[in-house]
Amino acid sequence: MLKPDFEKNGQDGLIPAVVTDVDSKEVLMLAYMNAESYQKTLATGETWFWSRSRQEFWHKGATSGNTQRVESITLDCDADTLLIAVKPAGPACHTGARTCFFNTVLDKTKEK
Amino acid sequence: MLKPDFEKNGQDGLIPAVVTDVDSKEVLMLAYMNAESYQKTLATGETWFWSRSRQEFWHKGATSGNTQRVESITLDCDADTLLIAVKPAGPACHTGARTCFFNTVLDKTKEK
Repeated sequence: MLKPDFEKNGQDGLIPAVVTDVDSKEVLMLAYMNAESYQKTLATGETWFWSRSRQEFWHKGATSGNTQRVESITLDCDADTLLIAVKPAGPACHTGARTCFFNTVLDKTKEK
Repeated sequence: MLKPDFEKNGQDGLIPAVVTDVDSKEVLMLAYMNAESYQKTLATGETWFWSRSRQEFWHKGATSGNTQRVESITLDCDADTLLIAVKPAGPACHTGARTCFFNTVLDKTKEK
């Protein structure tokens, strides 16, 4: 099995994980994983991250119920970023939004 | 205009930028931006990153021709990750692949 390179970045053993909705393909959030949270993700089939602000494991949905069932995991060309497609049990964002990406800076697609 | 928080992360003023294809919605790559590369991106309408390995600005496609025309920019809930939808002039990956995410670790969607 291909293994993420948690050590390459010099970021405390953390690499970014981009989480998408397996059905809509929408990008839901980005969070960070270390080797152990990645192992927990593989073992449980749900996303586990490392919270940089709280410095602790973060089982997504453990308190909110909005867990994310892992459907696929893909590594990028240099194995330092994860792309994880999930089936979400609820909103990805702590604000209650479906996706964390709701602050539009610019949108040229609407000008057409 | 909403502004990314380049200082929050303690990552040398860098934040991750997730790049998607505006048409297919596919995630193409993840790279890092600092405040100046973000300004270059806004000013030119093409993606500019900061290369952590080379420690220099990286105008995507400057040598390969595979530039990325910016169609939309969205910030996440805490303004420390960028989501950039682009119209790519060619493959995103230096390997020639359309997307950098081609290393499948697991795929449950194919088991169904």
